[in-house]
Amino acid sequence: MSQAQGSLGSVGLVGLGVMGRGVAENLLKKGFAVVGRDVNPEALTWLQSIGGQAATDAASITSVCDVVVSFVVNDKQTEDVLFGQDGLAASMRPGSVFIACSTMSPKYVRELAVRLANMQIHLIDSPVTGGQIGARNGTLTVMVAGDPDVFERVKPVMSAFGGKLFFLSKEQGQGSQMKVINQLLCGVHIAAAAEALAMAKRSGLPLDTTLEILKSGAASSWMLGDRGTRMITDSFDNVTSAVDIFVKDMGLVLDSARESSFAASMAHAAFLQFIEASGHGLGKLDDAAVIRNYID
Amino acid sequence: MSQAQGSLGSVGLVGLGVMGRGVAENLLKKGFAVVGRDVNPEALTWLQSIGGQAATDAASITSVCDVVVSFVVNDKQTEDVLFGQDGLAASMRPGSVFIACSTMSPKYVRELAVRLANMQIHLIDSPVTGGQIGARNGTLTVMVAGDPDVFERVKPVMSAFGGKLFFLSKEQGQGSQMKVINQLLCGVHIAAAAEALAMAKRSGLPLDTTLEILKSGAASSWMLGDRGTRMITDSFDNVTSAVDIFVKDMGLVLDSARESSFAASMAHAAFLQFIEASGHGLGKLDDAAVIRNYID
Repeated sequence: MSQAQGSLGSVGLVGLGVMGRGVAENLLKKGFAVVGRDVNPEALTWLQSIGGQAATDAASITSVCDVVVSFVVNDKQTEDVLFGQDGLAASMRPGSVFIACSTMSPKYVRELAVRLANMQIHLIDSPVTGGQIGARNGTLTVMVAGDPDVFERVKPVMSAFGGKLFFLSKEQGQGSQMKVINQLLCGVHIAAAAEALAMAKRSGLPLDTTLEILKSGAASSWMLGDRGTRMITDSFDNVTSAVDIFVKDMGLVLDSARESSFAASMAHAAFLQFIEASGHGLGKLDDAAVIRNYID
Repeated sequence: MSQAQGSLGSVGLVGLGVMGRGVAENLLKKGFAVVGRDVNPEALTWLQSIGGQAATDAASITSVCDVVVSFVVNDKQTEDVLFGQDGLAASMRPGSVFIACSTMSPKYVRELAVRLANMQIHLIDSPVTGGQIGARNGTLTVMVAGDPDVFERVKPVMSAFGGKLFFLSKEQGQGSQMKVINQLLCGVHIAAAAEALAMAKRSGLPLDTTLEILKSGAASSWMLGDRGTRMITDSFDNVTSAVDIFVKDMGLVLDSARESSFAASMAHAAFLQFIEASGHGLGKLDDAAVIRNYID
């Protein structure tokens, strides 16, 4: 890593949405210089305002950073960032590392690893969980696959935003596979919470007490605790994660399951809730809005 | 309540399975005399060994107890206990109370309340959650519906086994409705945990680390925490709750949903896992065994 900027060197950061911004803050706080790129000019102005540098082109990153962290949204944006117009891959130096933290298809990630390896670029397949709060506090859980030696080398960078780094496999794609399975449970639990609370409403049960009982025992889930109140108060405008994010993520679950001939029945049932909600125009609302599938 | 036995009077207790036994111990510990009934003679010998009395017929209970607590398994056993051969209902004194803690169909409970009321017997519709451990420790969560004055009267008895008593409604059946919704989430979460861990196994992920990651964040559920280790270690012989219990309970969820024209898609998907497992001869195993639907 270049020592040109922060005391620990410069890190490239692509994707300055809510997650990426939390990561930028933590990288800067821990002593790294951050050179950021985003299609949204406002995000770059924000980065400069907290002491980072806005990249005007790929070379602004690749000429000073041997490590690039990606918090773009999906496969497609990753493809654009690396191989699209003025993409990074063409000018990344041999031996440099692309740390991919987006939620992506394991199949795409496996292929990406090979393509980058052919250009002497290392991939660290490392999606995260922990949401906006984890990103802001530097406590994200990171699911890591890739070359263990490369991982050791970039650990200081990853520890700046990850509270827990779990090394799963040297086999590329296994980090993304783990994230897919994590999302399977998250999606099923949201859909189930919506179904249970909607059924309580249909039955005329007092919803506050219902939620308290459900949260207190064997029926509880993290998602019920987090989304339950929004569901029973019909509050979907403060979006922590949108319905369409789970349309995407449960889609990845189904694709991955199909690829290994795995009949993911629960995930299928949950996917239908999210896509039905999206089809009714609720895609941009908070994902707690899937309860509207059950309630007029 | 008669003061003949324990300092607080005699309580009838029907159904001395694992749940009922914990309740018996707590009633005795808190100063009640317990007159118990069960089809299993061994259970009655056990009750006597801890200081309770074994009922030889209905009159052994109804002549001394104005409060009867029921921990039998289901609607059918409740029907037998009350109205079957030498059933209790015929000799229960006017004004006495039947506290029904079994998991039963809300529809059956509503009808039962009317039938008992016609005999001047009060029903307290009060299923529980908290399992064997809650029963043993007297910390069961109790979901109560019925006449509030009657509930106040029997609260000392219910507090002997219930750590938290939630009064939901004066409308009979709403306690059972709440329990049905609780079981909806429990069943979905077990089936989802099995699906996620089976998919991790199919993908070749390290299962210990997978479970640790899933339990640590947004994907977590009480059921994943409780059943997860049994699922990944293939340990289904120590039965805390059997597959067939959830075949029954998810059946109650589906019946109740259908009754109110509620499309409980997630519950349907989970029900299929339990009944499929049962159909393959796994019904008596611990419910964590539903993972075998996905794994050879």
